Amino acid sequence: DFAKIDHQRQWRTGFPEVIWSQGKTPSQIIKIMNAMRSHGSPLIMTTRLEPEIADLIALEVPNLRYYPMAKIGAIGQLEQKYQGKISILTAGTADLSVAQEAAITAELCGFEVERLWDVGVAGIHRLLSNRHIIDNADVLIVVAGMEGALPSVVAGMANGPVIAVPTSIGYGTSFGGVAPLLTMLNSCATGIGVVNIDNGFGAAMLAGQILRLANRLKS
Amino acid sequence: DFAKIDHQRQWRTGFPEVIWSQGKTPSQIIKIMNAMRSHGSPLIMTTRLEPEIADLIALEVPNLRYYPMAKIGAIGQLEQKYQGKISILTAGTADLSVAQEAAITAELCGFEVERLWDVGVAGIHRLLSNRHIIDNADVLIVVAGMEGALPSVVAGMANGPVIAVPTSIGYGTSFGGVAPLLTMLNSCATGIGVVNIDNGFGAAMLAGQILRLANRLKS
Amino acid sequence: DFAKIDHQRQWRTGFPEVIWSQGKTPSQIIKIMNAMRSHGSPLIMTTRLEPEIADLIALEVPNLRYYPMAKIGAIGQLEQKYQGKISILTAGTADLSVAQEAAITAELCGFEVERLWDVGVAGIHRLLSNRHIIDNADVLIVVAGMEGALPSVVAGMANGPVIAVPTSIGYGTSFGGVAPLLTMLNSCATGIGVVNIDNGFGAAMLAGQILRLANRLKS
Amino acid sequence: DFAKIDHQRQWRTGFPEVIWSQGKTPSQIIKIMNAMRSHGSPLIMTTRLEPEIADLIALEVPNLRYYPMAKIGAIGQLEQKYQGKISILTAGTADLSVAQEAAITAELCGFEVERLWDVGVAGIHRLLSNRHIIDNADVLIVVAGMEGALPSVVAGMANGPVIAVPTSIGYGTSFGGVAPLLTMLNSCATGIGVVNIDNGFGAAMLAGQILRLANRLKS
Amino acid sequence: DFAKIDHQRQWRTGFPEVIWSQGKTPSQIIKIMNAMRSHGSPLIMTTRLEPEIADLIALEVPNLRYYPMAKIGAIGQLEQKYQGKISILTAGTADLSVAQEAAITAELCGFEVERLWDVGVAGIHRLLSNRHIIDNADVLIVVAGMEGALPSVVAGMANGPVIAVPTSIGYGTSFGGVAPLLTMLNSCATGIGVVNIDNGFGAAMLAGQILRLANRLKS
Amino acid sequence: DFAKIDHQRQWRTGFPEVIWSQGKTPSQIIKIMNAMRSHGSPLIMTTRLEPEIADLIALEVPNLRYYPMAKIGAIGQLEQKYQGKISILTAGTADLSVAQEAAITAELCGFEVERLWDVGVAGIHRLLSNRHIIDNADVLIVVAGMEGALPSVVAGMANGPVIAVPTSIGYGTSFGGVAPLLTMLNSCATGIGVVNIDNGFGAAMLAGQILRLANRLKS
Amino acid sequence: DFAKIDHQRQWRTGFPEVIWSQGKTPSQIIKIMNAMRSHGSPLIMTTRLEPEIADLIALEVPNLRYYPMAKIGAIGQLEQKYQGKISILTAGTADLSVAQEAAITAELCGFEVERLWDVGVAGIHRLLSNRHIIDNADVLIVVAGMEGALPSVVAGMANGPVIAVPTSIGYGTSFGGVAPLLTMLNSCATGIGVVNIDNGFGAAMLAGQILRLANRLKS
Amino acid sequence: DFAKIDHQRQWRTGFPEVIWSQGKTPSQIIKIMNAMRSHGSPLIMTTRLEPEIADLIALEVPNLRYYPMAKIGAIGQLEQKYQGKISILTAGTADLSVAQEAAITAELCGFEVERLWDVGVAGIHRLLSNRHIIDNADVLIVVAGMEGALPSVVAGMANGPVIAVPTSIGYGTSFGGVAPLLTMLNSCATGIGVVNIDNGFGAAMLAGQILRLANRLKS
Ligand SMILES: Nc1ncnc2c1ncn2[C@@H]1O[C@H](COP(=O)(O)O)[C@@H](O)[C@H]1O
Ligand SMILES: Nc1ncnc2c1ncn2[C@@H]1O[C@H](COP(=O)(O)O)[C@@H](O)[C@H]1O
Ligand SMILES: Nc1ncnc2c1ncn2[C@@H]1O[C@H](COP(=O)(O)O)[C@@H](O)[C@H]1O
Ligand SMILES: Nc1ncnc2c1ncn2[C@@H]1O[C@H](COP(=O)(O)O)[C@@H](O)[C@H]1O
Ligand SMILES: [Mg+2]
Ligand SMILES: [Mg+2]
Ligand SMILES: [Mg+2]
Ligand SMILES: [Mg+2]
Ligand SMILES: [Mg+2]
Ligand SMILES: [Mg+2]
Ligand SMILES: [Mg+2]
Ligand SMILES: [Mg+2]
Repeated sequence: DFAKIDHQRQWRTGFPEVIWSQGKTPSQIIKIMNAMRSHGSPLIMTTRLEPEIADLIALEVPNLRYYPMAKIGAIGQLEQKYQGKISILTAGTADLSVAQEAAITAELCGFEVERLWDVGVAGIHRLLSNRHIIDNADVLIVVAGMEGALPSVVAGMANGPVIAVPTSIGYGTSFGGVAPLLTMLNSCATGIGVVNIDNGFGAAMLAGQILRLANRLKS
Repeated sequence: DFAKIDHQRQWRTGFPEVIWSQGKTPSQIIKIMNAMRSHGSPLIMTTRLEPEIADLIALEVPNLRYYPMAKIGAIGQLEQKYQGKISILTAGTADLSVAQEAAITAELCGFEVERLWDVGVAGIHRLLSNRHIIDNADVLIVVAGMEGALPSVVAGMANGPVIAVPTSIGYGTSFGGVAPLLTMLNSCATGIGVVNIDNGFGAAMLAGQILRLANRLKS
Repeated sequence: DFAKIDHQRQWRTGFPEVIWSQGKTPSQIIKIMNAMRSHGSPLIMTTRLEPEIADLIALEVPNLRYYPMAKIGAIGQLEQKYQGKISILTAGTADLSVAQEAAITAELCGFEVERLWDVGVAGIHRLLSNRHIIDNADVLIVVAGMEGALPSVVAGMANGPVIAVPTSIGYGTSFGGVAPLLTMLNSCATGIGVVNIDNGFGAAMLAGQILRLANRLKS
Repeated sequence: DFAKIDHQRQWRTGFPEVIWSQGKTPSQIIKIMNAMRSHGSPLIMTTRLEPEIADLIALEVPNLRYYPMAKIGAIGQLEQKYQGKISILTAGTADLSVAQEAAITAELCGFEVERLWDVGVAGIHRLLSNRHIIDNADVLIVVAGMEGALPSVVAGMANGPVIAVPTSIGYGTSFGGVAPLLTMLNSCATGIGVVNIDNGFGAAMLAGQILRLANRLKS
Repeated sequence: DFAKIDHQRQWRTGFPEVIWSQGKTPSQIIKIMNAMRSHGSPLIMTTRLEPEIADLIALEVPNLRYYPMAKIGAIGQLEQKYQGKISILTAGTADLSVAQEAAITAELCGFEVERLWDVGVAGIHRLLSNRHIIDNADVLIVVAGMEGALPSVVAGMANGPVIAVPTSIGYGTSFGGVAPLLTMLNSCATGIGVVNIDNGFGAAMLAGQILRLANRLKS
Repeated sequence: DFAKIDHQRQWRTGFPEVIWSQGKTPSQIIKIMNAMRSHGSPLIMTTRLEPEIADLIALEVPNLRYYPMAKIGAIGQLEQKYQGKISILTAGTADLSVAQEAAITAELCGFEVERLWDVGVAGIHRLLSNRHIIDNADVLIVVAGMEGALPSVVAGMANGPVIAVPTSIGYGTSFGGVAPLLTMLNSCATGIGVVNIDNGFGAAMLAGQILRLANRLKS
Repeated sequence: DFAKIDHQRQWRTGFPEVIWSQGKTPSQIIKIMNAMRSHGSPLIMTTRLEPEIADLIALEVPNLRYYPMAKIGAIGQLEQKYQGKISILTAGTADLSVAQEAAITAELCGFEVERLWDVGVAGIHRLLSNRHIIDNADVLIVVAGMEGALPSVVAGMANGPVIAVPTSIGYGTSFGGVAPLLTMLNSCATGIGVVNIDNGFGAAMLAGQILRLANRLKS
Repeated sequence: DFAKIDHQRQWRTGFPEVIWSQGKTPSQIIKIMNAMRSHGSPLIMTTRLEPEIADLIALEVPNLRYYPMAKIGAIGQLEQKYQGKISILTAGTADLSVAQEAAITAELCGFEVERLWDVGVAGIHRLLSNRHIIDNADVLIVVAGMEGALPSVVAGMANGPVIAVPTSIGYGTSFGGVAPLLTMLNSCATGIGVVNIDNGFGAAMLAGQILRLANRLKS
C-alpha cells in the first residue's frame, strides 16, 4: 500500500518503472522488487543504491546484480535492440559515477553505449583529437561538473541532439552543481536539453526515448 | 568585425546561425543579415525582435517577414522536409508567445508543427480529452509558466521525448520562471529535457535535431 | 524557567501546545512533559523525536507511545470527536514519513484520517483510478517532494480545501524542498494553502482548525 | 483556440474559472468573457486588470464593473449565500490593494466579509484592542508585507483557520515579498496556510472552500 | 606568527580581543591564551568552544572555566562595573544556547544581565504578562529562530534600543536562520539593530558598547 | 479606516509614528498628516517621498518642508535636546541620499549630527586623516554600498556603538545591496548593529534610542 | 565636501581616481572634474556615463571626449608607455559595450590593446582560427555573457594570465550575469582572475597593474 | 581511460596538470601519478588530499611529500627560478589552510613566497604596521573569510596586482564564503582579480602566470 507500482509504464512509455532507492527502507525496496518480479517484469532496476543496502537486499532478492560505480542494482535486461547508439562524454574523472549511471541504465534498456571520459575544455585538444566520436554520434550525453562548459562546445560541433548533465562535482561557488546547471541552460549553442544535477538516469531515459522514436519513425 | 558569422553552422549542425536581436543595435542586425544574404543563406532568421526594431530593419532589408506573437523576423525558409512532427502544448493562454517562438522556428526550419494551447493541469480533463494528440505525438514541446507541472503529466503519458520550456509567466514566487524551471528539472516522470526560461527557440532546435537524427537513422 | 508552557493554548485555539523536540535536550523534554502532565493535559505530544531520544525519555516518562515513521511521541489522546475526515495523499513512497506525521497528529487530536499513498502525477492513472477518494474528501492534505505537482492536479479536481505539504525528498535542484514549495505556491489551481517544507504537523493542525470550524458553524 | 475555458470548474470545485489578465491581450480577455457569457456563467471575473485595460474592455463588454483598488473587473455575482464570514486583516495601509483583491473576490462569490486594516505588530495595542474581531472570526485572512509577523500573532490568538498572504510591500531585504513569505511559512503558531506573494485572490478562494465545506458538512 | 593578537583592543574599544575557536587547532588556541596571559590580559575568553576541545585545552591552561550551554571558555573577568543592565529575551527554548552566549559574554565583561526565556509570539500573553521587564529594560537583546517575529513586537513596546539575534533554530524554509534574519531586517518597528545568525557574542558586544557610551556620557 | 495611527508611539518609544510614503496614495498621506496635526503631534514626518508627490501634498498641507536629497517631508520639529551626537560617515558620494535620510531624521528628532562623506576603504588615508572624528564620536552611523567594508574598519577603531547601513549603490553582484549587507553582518569587528538596505531612517531611530537611553541613565 | 578626491591614487597605485558616474548628479560630476583639473591630473575619466548626461556635462567641462559604446567620458591621456599589450576577446557581439569599456580604459591609461570580437565557444573554429592571437598575447581579457565558457577554453590554451569578465547579456537563468560569473569562478582551467559582472573598467585596471609590474620588474 | 592526462599543459601554459583529489578514488590518483612519473613530469602534485588518503597513497607511490596544513601531496619540484615574489596575506588565523595551499603551490612551482598572517581590518594598525610588505610586494594574494574586506584595503594601498581569495571561514550569513566573495567582487578599489572560494591553488597559478609574463616580457 505504501507503493502503487506503475506496471503499465513500459507499455505506455517504453520503459518499466525504476525504483529510486533514496528515502525508501530496504524492506520497502525488497517488497517492490518482489511485486515487480511476480508481475513478470523483464527488468527490475533500482538507482542510487548504496553498497551496504545492496548487500542487505541481495540476501533476500536472488539474482541481483550490483554496479558499484553507477550505484545501480538490477535483475534482468530489456531484450529489444535499437539502431543507433548513445555516446557519453565526461569533462573530468570525478564525473564518472554520474556518467556510469547513464551508461548502465542505457545498456540495461537495450541500447549500445560509447564512452569517452575526461575531455573537459581546459585542454581542448583532448576533445578535438576525439572529434570523430562526436562526428559519428547519434545521441550525445555530456556530463560535466565545476563550470560545466563541455556541452556548449560539443553541441557547437555535433550534428544531433545533446543531453547535458550537470554534476555536483566542484566546491565553493559550484553550489552543489548549480554552476554547471546554469552554464548548460544558458548555452549559446543549440540542440541541448538539460536534466537535473547528477541525473545520469534521466539523461539515459531521454536518450532512449529519442532513439526509440527514431526506430519507430523508421519502420 | 563586431560579428564572426558562423557560416559553417548549417553544414556542421544542420541549422544556420540565427541572430539573437537582444543587445544588438539595428544597424548591427542589418549588417549581419546582409552578410548572410550575400553568403547565400537560404534562411535568415532573428529572434526576440521587438516590433519597432522590426519596422526599422524592414526599411533596409527587403522581404523581411515579421511574426509579432513570436517576435521573429525571417527571410527565406529551409526547404528540406522531414518525416515526423513536433507537437507543442501550452499550460495557459499567457504562454503563447513562447510557444509560438518554438512553432515558427520549427516551421521555418522545415518541420511540421501541431499546436494545443491552454491545457494546464488545473483542469486535467482538458488534457485527458486531447489524449490522442499525446498518443500520436513524435516529439513533444511542453510550455508552462506558474508552477510548470504540465510536462510531468505529459511525460507520464507520452511514448517519446518531451522538451520542457519554463516561462516567466506568473508573479511573486514564480521568480521570473524559476518555479516552473525547478518543477521541470525535478520531474519524477522521465524522458524530459529542459531548456532555458522562455527559450522557445532552443526547444525547437532540440526537437529539430531529434527529428533530423530519426530521419538520418532511417535512411 | 527555560520554557513557559502555553497551558491556555487548548482553551484558546482548540489544541494543546505540542513539544518540538529539535534543539531541546532530553531532560528539557522530560521536564516539559511532566509539567503538562501535572497540569492535567489530556494529550502530551512531541514531534521530530529521534528513536534514541524516545528511548531515553521512555525511561523516565511512563506511558509514552512512540510512532517511528512519524517520529512522534505521545501520551493520551484528545477525546472530542468531529464530523468530517482528513484525507491524506502522497506523491511517492519516500514522502510517507511526513504524511504519517500529519496522520498521527490528526488522529491524536480526534480526527478521522483516510490515507492514499504513492499517486504522483508521473502515472496519472493512479490518481484517476482513485477519483472517488478525492470526490468524497472533506479536507485534503497532499504531500509531495521532487517537483511537487500533485496538489495542483488534486485541487483542480477537488471540491474542498487542499493543504499542500512540500517535502525535502529529491536531490540536486529540489534544494531540500524548495522546488515543490514553489510549485505549490504558484499553483494555477485554487483553494490551496501551503505549509513549511516537511511540516506534516502543521498541515494536520490547519486541517483540524478547518474541521473544528465546520463543526462549530454547524451547531 | 488560444483558451480552453474550464466551464466545468464551478460544477467541479464550486467556483467558476477566473480570468487572469496578466499576459493576455485585451482582445483575448474580451473573447474569453464573451464565451463565458454565452455559456451562461453567472459570474465573469478577471483579476490584475490595469485601469486602462479595463477601460478598453468596457467599450466592448457591457456591464463590466471595475474595482480599482482590487484591480478586479466583474460581470454578475454568485447568488448562493453561506453561513459564516471571512475576516480580513492587514498589517499596514500599503497592503490594502492585496487585501481588497481578497475581499472583492470573496464578496463576488457570495461570502460575507469583515475588514480590519493597519493593525501590524509594531503597535500591538491596535490588534489587542480589536481582539473581539479575532475572537468572533470564522476564517481569517491576514495580509502583511515587510516582516510579515501579523499572521503568527493572530494565529496564536485565533480559534480557527488562518490564511496568510505575504505582500511585496517593503524594500531592500524584503525581496519583493520573500521576507514575509518566509515568516509565514516558519510560524511557530499553528493553523496557518500560506498562499503566493500578493495572491489575495487565492486566499479568498481557499477561505471560500473552507466555508463551503463547513456549510456542506452542516447540512 | 599565525596570530597577531590585538593587545590594544581593550584600550581602543573597551573590550579585549576574544578568541573565535572555530577553525583554530587546540594548540593554536592554547598559544594565543598563553600569549594573552603573559600580556596581563584581565579576561581571556574564547567562543564556540566545543566541550571536547575545552577538555583538551584545560589540560594545559590552568583556571579555564567552561560554560557548556554558551560554549564559552574563560579565564578572569573584567572588573569595571556599569550602570544599567542588559535584558535578554528568547522566543523559544531551543534558542537558549545563543542567548546564553550573549548572557555569559556580557557578564564576563562586567554587565548586569536579566533573562526571560520562551516568550515567543505564538502565545503573546506570555510576553504581555512580562511587560514590566520590557518597560524597565535599558538595552534589550531579543533572540529568535523560526519566523523571528519577537523583536518586532518587543521594539514596538520598548522605550530603548533593541538588538535582534536571529538563530538557526527551525527547519525547511528557515534556511539556517535566513528567515528570522529577514524578519528582523524588515521590521516595521524602529530602534532595532541586527547581528549575524547565532551571533550572541556580537549582540553582547554591541549592548556593551551602548551601556559604556551611556556611562561615559553620564560622567 | 485605512490607517490606525499609533498616536501613543511617542509616549511609548520616545518618537512619534513616521509615515512611510511608498505604497500610499497622496490622498492617504494627506489624511494621515491632517489626523496627526489635529492630534497635536509636534513632528509630522514622512520618508521616501518623491519630489512630485511632495509638490502635490504641499498644495493641501501647509508648512510642509521638503528635503530633496533625503526625500523627507516634515512639519514641525521635536524640541527635546540630548547630550551626545550622532556621527554619520559614508564610503562614497553615491551613498549621500541614504546618509541624508539618517541625518535629517536625527536632526528633526532633536539630535546633533556630524557628517563625514566619501571616506571609503579604497583610499584608507582619507579615513585615517579623519581619525579624530571617530575618536570623538558617541554613536556612529556608517553608510556604504558596493562591498560595504567601511563599518568593519570604523568599528575596529571606534570606542562606541556602530550602526551599519548597507546601500543599494553598486551593480552586478552587489545585488541591490545584498553584498554590503552580508559584509556588515559578518564583520570580524564587534559592536556593530545592522539595519535594512538603504534604511537611513531606521539607523537614525536606533541611534536616537541609544542616546535617549544614555540621557535617561545619566539623570 | 560630498567627495574626498583621492589625488594620491596615481602616486600610490599608478592610476588616478576614476569617477563612477552612477548615483552622482551631473553637478557633482562636474565639480569633481574641475577639482581634478585644478589639481593638474593628466587624465580625468568617468565611467558608466549615459549619453544625455555626457551632453549636459560637456556644456560646462571643455575638452570632454565621449566614447558612446564604452560609455566613458575623458579629458587628457596618460603619457607613460608600457611594453606588452592587452588582448581583449568577446564571446558575442552583445558583449561589445563591456569589452569597449575595458579597451578604452586601457588605451587612456597608455596601454596597447588588441581586439577580437565574437569568438564564443558555440563555433569553436572561430577561436581556433585565431589561435595566433592567444599564442602571442601578454595579458588576456575575456568577456562573455550567457554561459560564459570562453575564458575556460582560452585559459586552457594561453601561456599567460587571463582576466575573465562576466556580462549581464542573456535572459532567464543567466540571472543578470550570475551564470557566466559562476562559470568563470569554477573554471577547471587555471590562471584566471574574475571581476564583477559588466566590470570592463576593473578588468583593464587589473591588466594594467599586471603590465606595470612586468615593466617594473624588467627595469 | 578514466583520465586523459594533459601532458602538454606545462609546455602550453607553463605549469603541469595538477591532480584534484576530491571525487577520485585512491587507486585513480595512484594511477595518474604513476602515468605522470613515467612521462617524466618534474613535478607531480595533488591538492585537497586528506591525510588518511595521503597515507594510503604513500604506500604505493615512493617519495610522496605531504603538507598537512595545505593538504597537498607532491613529488619533485619545478626548477625554473623567477624574478619577483608572491606575497600572501590572511585576515585571520583560520584562513591559514587556504593561504598555505597557495604558498606551497607557488613554492613547488619555483616562486619565492612571503607570508603575513592575521592582519584583518578589525585591527587596522596590524596592517598599517606592515605597510612595507605591501609597498615592496610584486604580486599580492589576499586571503579572507567572514566579511572579506582585507583585499579592498590592501588594493587601495598597493602598487601592483592583487589576487583575492574568499574562504569559507565564518558562520551564518557568510554562507560558506559567499559573503567574502561578494565583498571582493564589489571592491571599490581596483586591480583585483577574484578566484573561487577556498581556491588557494588557483590564486597561486594566477600569480605564477603574472610573474612568468613579467619574466618573459623582461627578456
Ligand atoms: N513539527 C513541528 N513543526 C512546526 N512547529 C511545531 C512542530 N512541533 C511543534 N511545533 C510548534 O512549535 C512550538 C514549539 O516551540 P518551543 O517548544 O517553545 O520551541 C509549539 O508552539 C508547537 O505548536
Ligand atoms: N490573481 C490570480 N492569482 C492566481 N491565480 C489566478 C488569479 N486570477 C485567476 N487565477 C487562476 O489562474 C488561472 C488562469 O489561467 P489562464 O487564464 O488560462 O492563463 C485560472 O484557472 C484562475 O483560477
Ligand atoms: N562568536 C563570535 N562571532 C563573531 N565574532 C567573534 C566571535 N568570537 C570572537 N569573535 C571576533 O572574531 C575575531 C577573531 O578572529 P581570529 O581569532 O583572528 O580568527 C576577534 O576579533 C573577535 O572579536
Ligand atoms: N565602472 C566602474 N566599476 C567599478 N568601480 C569603478 C568604476 N568606475 C570607477 N570605479 C571606482 O569606483 C570608485 C568611485 O567611487 P565614488 O566615485 O567615490 O563613488 C573609484 O575609486 C574608482 O576607482
Ligand atoms: Mg581530468
Ligand atoms: Mg487558461
Ligand atoms: Mg512511487
Ligand atoms: Mg500603518
Ligand atoms: Mg516554547
Ligand atoms: Mg569617492
Ligand atoms: Mg555571435
Ligand atoms: Mg585574528
